[in-house]
Amino acid sequence: MTQADTRLVSQFAFLLEIDRLKSVLRASELVDRSRFENSAEHSWHICLFATVLAEHAEPGVQINRVIQMLLLHDIVEIDVGDNPIHGDVDQAKVDAEEAIAAKRIFGLLPADQGMLFRDLWSEFEAAQTPDAIFAKAIDRVAPVIQIMASGGGSWKTYGVTLEKLESRIGVKVTRGAPKLWAYVKTQAEVFFKEHGLG
Amino acid sequence: MTQADTRLVSQFAFLLEIDRLKSVLRASELVDRSRFENSAEHSWHICLFATVLAEHAEPGVQINRVIQMLLLHDIVEIDVGDNPIHGDVDQAKVDAEEAIAAKRIFGLLPADQGMLFRDLWSEFEAAQTPDAIFAKAIDRVAPVIQIMASGGGSWKTYGVTLEKLESRIGVKVTRGAPKLWAYVKTQAEVFFKEHGLG
Repeated sequence: MTQADTRLVSQFAFLLEIDRLKSVLRASELVDRSRFENSAEHSWHICLFATVLAEHAEPGVQINRVIQMLLLHDIVEIDVGDNPIHGDVDQAKVDAEEAIAAKRIFGLLPADQGMLFRDLWSEFEAAQTPDAIFAKAIDRVAPVIQIMASGGGSWKTYGVTLEKLESRIGVKVTRGAPKLWAYVKTQAEVFFKEHGLG
Repeated sequence: MTQADTRLVSQFAFLLEIDRLKSVLRASELVDRSRFENSAEHSWHICLFATVLAEHAEPGVQINRVIQMLLLHDIVEIDVGDNPIHGDVDQAKVDAEEAIAAKRIFGLLPADQGMLFRDLWSEFEAAQTPDAIFAKAIDRVAPVIQIMASGGGSWKTYGVTLEKLESRIGVKVTRGAPKLWAYVKTQAEVFFKEHGLG
């Protein structure tokens, strides 16, 4: 085998392993409420959210790096599952499990690529750089838009109020895209009033 | 409404509309064969194929443009459905329907963005630029890897032979990533022999 072939063996092992993200279900439903959404199709969707909404990012955001982060941000869920933001989870425990998952799954790649992917994932998780802050904002705002379009499904399940939405989502979206959240917040206020929620 | 808000109305209309790609089913199954794959999760998957396999592209390929193309390449299927490469379709009819779909769906966006997306989609479809040729190669090679890993499912359904695989897939992958196809072809030859296929 050539050196390129050796790399392909590792690359295909990784690319086949991540097929399993298509079977990780989230708490949110499709907009037409026909079924729950999986983390792979969610990842595709938020990459397009990021692309379309890039003009609302703060100056200096590199949208291509944001998309790289969003493509791989949920891959650790293959081992750990999805932990809904409005659910009751032990975040330290989840973080530790996700770090182990990242090591295992990105470790399937050739070492240089695996390191690059783990670094991008860690940067996203830490949410300190402009790119990661915008990526997190997109990951948080997309479900808000979807849930409002589908009648509020998982907000009802988890008893989400406007205050909780602001503290769990609004604060993070505002960090990465303040004008975007200002608009979505006005929509959410109308939605909560119309649906008799919190 | 501010001008930014007016754009957001159109942008969210588009981003909600494309949620429907999650309900467009392909002929290929998940690797674990638990169900058929949908076009949204497929789009996510091939963006990672492109990212990981970028080093096997011909010189001059801009991987970020490739990923933009792959994110949106199947959106027209919301109106037209998926047409399996090994199926028996009237390609001219499909092309005409897809052009109408592109106009409608990308037309939901602000005009400048809609134009940009349609241009990228047309470039992908035409497969004449280095970026589009590599994007097509990735879109074609990914199912080959998945189908071999899952035991050959849709190849059996469609009576695919090694010759058909070469003429329908190999030629296009070779255009964009010749070394990649050289490797995959040797794997496919072993697979067809082991599974008693054409």
